[in-house]
Amino acid sequence: MTQTHTGLIGLGTMGAALALNIAEKGFPIAVWNRTGSVTQAFYDGAGELAARITPADTLETLVQAIVPPRAIILMVPAGQAVDDQLASLTALLGPEDLVIDAGNANFRDTDRRDAEELPFRFMGIGVSGGEEGARNGPAIMAGGSQAAWSQMQDLLQAIAARAEDGTPCADHMGPSGAGHFVKTVHNGIEYADMQMISEVYGMMRDGLAMEAPDIAPVFARWNEGVLQSYLIEISGKVAAATDPLDGGPMLDMIVDAAGQKGTGRWTAVEAQHLAAPVPVIEAAVMARNVSARRDERVAGEARFGQAGGPVDVSLDDLEAAMIAGKILCYAQGFSMMTSAARDFDWALDLPAIARVWRAGCIIRSSMLNDMAQALAEDPARNLILAPFFAGLLEGSLPALRRVVAAGALQGLPLPALSAGLAWFDLMRQARGTANMIQGQRDFFGAHGFGRLDGKDLRHGPWGNGA
Amino acid sequence: MTQTHTGLIGLGTMGAALALNIAEKGFPIAVWNRTGSVTQAFYDGAGELAARITPADTLETLVQAIVPPRAIILMVPAGQAVDDQLASLTALLGPEDLVIDAGNANFRDTDRRDAEELPFRFMGIGVSGGEEGARNGPAIMAGGSQAAWSQMQDLLQAIAARAEDGTPCADHMGPSGAGHFVKTVHNGIEYADMQMISEVYGMMRDGLAMEAPDIAPVFARWNEGVLQSYLIEISGKVAAATDPLDGGPMLDMIVDAAGQKGTGRWTAVEAQHLAAPVPVIEAAVMARNVSARRDERVAGEARFGQAGGPVDVSLDDLEAAMIAGKILCYAQGFSMMTSAARDFDWALDLPAIARVWRAGCIIRSSMLNDMAQALAEDPARNLILAPFFAGLLEGSLPALRRVVAAGALQGLPLPALSAGLAWFDLMRQARGTANMIQGQRDFFGAHGFGRLDGKDLRHGPWGNGA
Repeated sequence: MTQTHTGLIGLGTMGAALALNIAEKGFPIAVWNRTGSVTQAFYDGAGELAARITPADTLETLVQAIVPPRAIILMVPAGQAVDDQLASLTALLGPEDLVIDAGNANFRDTDRRDAEELPFRFMGIGVSGGEEGARNGPAIMAGGSQAAWSQMQDLLQAIAARAEDGTPCADHMGPSGAGHFVKTVHNGIEYADMQMISEVYGMMRDGLAMEAPDIAPVFARWNEGVLQSYLIEISGKVAAATDPLDGGPMLDMIVDAAGQKGTGRWTAVEAQHLAAPVPVIEAAVMARNVSARRDERVAGEARFGQAGGPVDVSLDDLEAAMIAGKILCYAQGFSMMTSAARDFDWALDLPAIARVWRAGCIIRSSMLNDMAQALAEDPARNLILAPFFAGLLEGSLPALRRVVAAGALQGLPLPALSAGLAWFDLMRQARGTANMIQGQRDFFGAHGFGRLDGKDLRHGPWGNGA
Repeated sequence: MTQTHTGLIGLGTMGAALALNIAEKGFPIAVWNRTGSVTQAFYDGAGELAARITPADTLETLVQAIVPPRAIILMVPAGQAVDDQLASLTALLGPEDLVIDAGNANFRDTDRRDAEELPFRFMGIGVSGGEEGARNGPAIMAGGSQAAWSQMQDLLQAIAARAEDGTPCADHMGPSGAGHFVKTVHNGIEYADMQMISEVYGMMRDGLAMEAPDIAPVFARWNEGVLQSYLIEISGKVAAATDPLDGGPMLDMIVDAAGQKGTGRWTAVEAQHLAAPVPVIEAAVMARNVSARRDERVAGEARFGQAGGPVDVSLDDLEAAMIAGKILCYAQGFSMMTSAARDFDWALDLPAIARVWRAGCIIRSSMLNDMAQALAEDPARNLILAPFFAGLLEGSLPALRRVVAAGALQGLPLPALSAGLAWFDLMRQARGTANMIQGQRDFFGAHGFGRLDGKDLRHGPWGNGA
């Protein structure tokens, strides 16, 4: 038992992993779980790290075991459990103490809690990387006051993953909800990355008649190039795995109905409130929702027949389409954060966000290195206009066009890739087609429109009395 | 001055039109506007209808002029103005009185107001059709208790538009917020219809090098066929109109940046909460948002060059693509209402909704007749599986595929049409590609998956400790 400034509440999978990580990095920590046997089991299993861990029987003894200024990390289920825990701490903590919600909170809850009259300080941090990340180095997106960040910076950067250049993947995103907001966008992008991978997988399976064992090395090869990333890497491993029960490809046995915890949905909802276009993320959420409607899909195929058949695209085309789709998706995500910074009056540092995402989190990739550089050159510029990525797009867009066209013609669904392409084509169309929409709106609702010549006649000569 | 049971508050464009409509249909009505001169001007301009109109100087005299049981229609701006008006009525009305919010409320506000302890009864009605509809016959979607509906049914059906078969386009959708909810979905579909029209307009303009005067008769011809609808009709008129200032096509002078009041966004947000896929509506909202970013689009074209050039699709292909896209969009909208009925425990009558939309509202079309019939056959069945529409889709999907492929290859953006197609291809894929997503989720998060053989092994042999 050693003196500690840090406590942790909630020793589930993520909490336990985080506590061990903290202890391992040299920070003594007091821990408490609502069910006492869980605390004891955690302590008993901590090995030599137990020397830096103080197990507490009660919330009161947890607080007493921590020397002020105290920092107590909550790792309890998002939602009511956090509010309950904060309420139970009000009688025990004072204005110098700091409580940190490290769970998967909706940033609006974090904002609300920060605005409430809590008798202690409060901050919210997004932690990405799953159990393995929590144990050995997650990406950490912190939101809270500068003072709270200063208090926690050493610990959070010590336990975080490190990028190849040695930078810790933990940083201060902004006030209160900013950390959980950035984590939400991260998760939306994660949905999109996964969906685009499943789409090119489908093109290989249903368009090129490839079996899972032949698909696995394709992902492995892509992981050596521009697409190098954790998700591409594990996709190769998933495709390579053998079902221990029947000896066939594991991938072929997995039911095609994707679950979700809702963070992708949060991203889509917040993007709507911000009027920020994130169609690749929306398409990914949509595809998961449709995947869950398996009975309807079976009825659909029974009525309209099975799609598929040979497509005239190469594996190189699919790789290039993934590269283009990924750039377009991230450009949308970073642009959404620009909108959030403006609407919420946050000083979001986009290059810093890209740097934090380079390691530890699920969407970690080598491309984020280049994105951090491109955003550092000019954070206000859309990523598709950064010279490096504009060049990559010029090289990869023709393949994306061929892939999307082939999927459309053969009935192979590419919702995320085609949404990315349509967004790009809107974004590079100086003269769009919304003049028709404005004409319609003025016709039926007298909403008025602007004129290209700037003259002051806001309505059309419809003669309909509108 | 005649005895009346009905009052109306708010004599703006919509309120004035509705009051005249009510009076014209034989219902005496008392009216009040916060600015007294507006009330007087309305009364003075009412012509012979003034005999059925009682102008009130104050809210108190308005209430006194109405004989119980009173029904008072609010036509004030959505939001705080409604809450303020309800508050000002609490001292004047009793439990037998009924207040009707006929504005463009978010259905969640209507639900909230209905749940509050108001000393009078409350209902919300969605009114579609713009000023012209309000004056001569709107579509009306009512939400409230059965008693409230019974009290108002005669009046609302008298002032509503009538379908070709004579049925009034006003019906009871369900309790409290149900009317405004259905109106919200209506507006989302309206966004989608308008966006798809703007996309085929773009294909004609930028892919087939057609000028606005040549595009106008195409819409006019389509309006004689399956696509017959108010929006197709006015699109032809918009394309045909001449700019009174410079003599060129009006359409070519209108700025291509579309405004929005946010109801399309509400639809997208509510669909996310319901996990209901409405990708065509989402794409339409997205396209409006991008249209507003004109500077970014100009910079995009400067960097990537102007898209366009000949596309190998015919005008018949474009008509068929619109037909397919429209069916897919409405199938999504009705399916969203099925989800809402389940989640909110509403008995939404989908065929009745389709019937209400047949006349008076902006999305009125002959296809809604067929949709009402198809939904009456089996409201739980997705519209794409109804024999009539499945047949229409089989005939029109090949053209939609060609159009989407041509747009993708030539860089002409078709976000809504391609989102509709991708959704369809997901919905008729019995074996989708979400097995890859489930494999990834189990790999990094141990989320588990189902097996096609139903056996009880929920995790893959990843050997990564997950």
